[in-house]
Amino acid sequence: MPSKQPRIAIDAMGGDYGPSVVVPAAVRAAEEGIALALVGDEDAIRAELGRLKTDGLDIDVVPASEVVEMDDKASDALRRKKDSSIHVACRTVKEGRADGVVSAGHSGATVACGMFVLGRIKGVLRPAFAGIMPTEKRPCVLIDVGANVDSKPQHLLQFGLMADVLARDVLGTERPTVGLLSIGEEEGKGNAIVKDSFELFRESELNFIGNVEGRDIFTGDVDIAVCDGFVGNVALKLSEGLAKSFGNILKKELSSSFLSKLGSLLSFGAFKRFKRLVDYAEYGGAPLLGLKGIVVVCHGKSNEKAIINAIRMAAKFVSNKSHEHLAEGLEAHRALSDGNSEKAA
Amino acid sequence: MPSKQPRIAIDAMGGDYGPSVVVPAAVRAAEEGIALALVGDEDAIRAELGRLKTDGLDIDVVPASEVVEMDDKASDALRRKKDSSIHVACRTVKEGRADGVVSAGHSGATVACGMFVLGRIKGVLRPAFAGIMPTEKRPCVLIDVGANVDSKPQHLLQFGLMADVLARDVLGTERPTVGLLSIGEEEGKGNAIVKDSFELFRESELNFIGNVEGRDIFTGDVDIAVCDGFVGNVALKLSEGLAKSFGNILKKELSSSFLSKLGSLLSFGAFKRFKRLVDYAEYGGAPLLGLKGIVVVCHGKSNEKAIINAIRMAAKFVSNKSHEHLAEGLEAHRALSDGNSEKAA
Repeated sequence: MPSKQPRIAIDAMGGDYGPSVVVPAAVRAAEEGIALALVGDEDAIRAELGRLKTDGLDIDVVPASEVVEMDDKASDALRRKKDSSIHVACRTVKEGRADGVVSAGHSGATVACGMFVLGRIKGVLRPAFAGIMPTEKRPCVLIDVGANVDSKPQHLLQFGLMADVLARDVLGTERPTVGLLSIGEEEGKGNAIVKDSFELFRESELNFIGNVEGRDIFTGDVDIAVCDGFVGNVALKLSEGLAKSFGNILKKELSSSFLSKLGSLLSFGAFKRFKRLVDYAEYGGAPLLGLKGIVVVCHGKSNEKAIINAIRMAAKFVSNKSHEHLAEGLEAHRALSDGNSEKAA
Repeated sequence: MPSKQPRIAIDAMGGDYGPSVVVPAAVRAAEEGIALALVGDEDAIRAELGRLKTDGLDIDVVPASEVVEMDDKASDALRRKKDSSIHVACRTVKEGRADGVVSAGHSGATVACGMFVLGRIKGVLRPAFAGIMPTEKRPCVLIDVGANVDSKPQHLLQFGLMADVLARDVLGTERPTVGLLSIGEEEGKGNAIVKDSFELFRESELNFIGNVEGRDIFTGDVDIAVCDGFVGNVALKLSEGLAKSFGNILKKELSSSFLSKLGSLLSFGAFKRFKRLVDYAEYGGAPLLGLKGIVVVCHGKSNEKAIINAIRMAAKFVSNKSHEHLAEGLEAHRALSDGNSEKAA
């Protein structure tokens, strides 16, 4: 395969702020040498580009006449809005004109388009969302944060194997530790799915450290915490909620007495460091792992920083060939477990 | 029934600090007029009491020769340590010498002793732990936070009905709103258990507002969030973890530069208000609802404030006859649903 610069397709219409935030973020990413395809309303995109310095940057503009609205149903977006920016962005990857997708648009529609337009890597049972938590030390990957509900043990194991590749390739964690998110550290603690998954994880080639608890995520004491998408999504939104409540309190404080206002300003560093613990913008978005091509889904409220970081993550995923490592990892695991069952037979 | 002062049995040996924290906390609660029974090593309890002013306070001392250690198995604690402080505390309630139990000891053993010594209120399928989150506005009851895993829709509905009584009687919330903790607000979003529970909640006499998300808990926009004990326990520990990480960051900040140290001191109010959002000490502990007698389980690291608040909560539960309201609520619901099924038939 000829070595070529990876290109990331960006849903320029996505997010609460659309092209006005996405296009400047894309230009900043392009300045770092990342090749891009901006997908959406051509006039709107060119108008934003016209306001910025883009000489020498490798930015394609790919027209798409429709936009998935936040109140559209994901299934409708997939079937009826075939010329939507999300749909077209996925198609550019499918057709080999780009290697990954970043979207801050309708996340359900992005997942649906990713699944059906790109398709799954051979052997992947269920693609999963990896939430990346900055934490006190190294980032922690929480997987799945909402692509699936009611998962089976074999699904959880694949989530772990896929997150292992993400942690190594993209986050630079060597031999990441993997835990099953549960309600007690001892083996045997948990619900049916956790108990049924424990042995599968222990027998796998993952660096499995057993069960972990909710409190271990933010300390950074585990690199990958695996759970069902329902549990992961509740956890993710709870963390976001706490961060938001924190912001509300800070705002109130800043408008109160002179002394506390002064205090808040002086200790802004601590506030900021704390908020960073749960700040989705730090990694920009949640990659949907297991598809033929990486799809990074950003928060609807994403700011420029979040979009830039999401583009960086997608580009790193592509240039490190994580897609291939992921397929190899799953294949190696299959070979290993086939070997084990032969030995057992 | 003759009206008598409710008496709360306290596991004096429980928690990381044992009698040295529990006994002074109990004395403070007794000063507010709450009758108590301190259960545990009589010498140790009397030694602590000897250091404090206890004239005129209504404090019984009930000897118990054993202590459940944190590494004991809950089932062993129940069967083999029948003279442990937790076991004896539950027995004093069973025998009518007290009306409720507060323990900061081994939570598994407390649940096991509560379940088997006290027994369930008639009609209760599964007792559940109610986590009380202070939030930005009114407290939010998260139920179940870990007494059960793999619950069924009928269990979740009962959790909601029991929490409704707690919110009204103990937290003073009129007509509390009830939500199903899920991964999207729209009906139809969620895993199998949430989807199967939705209709049951809608048809119930609860003030059901539909699905809520993790972020709604701390804003105080819902008074009761119902979930399976696995999900609730992960959520609770995640919140604790975030609060702890916050403490760590604050500690680092306080030992850094002069200006930021000054800032942290001045804005201590904001830090404190934020930490209060997830501070278990605010309500002292999680009541285990559905037993014949209230059992409040406190965090092992409980300080005096947490123990006092837990005793207050148990006393309020008893004096407001919440135990009877709970039984009536479940009974009324049964009558209502029987009526509905007759109408449907």
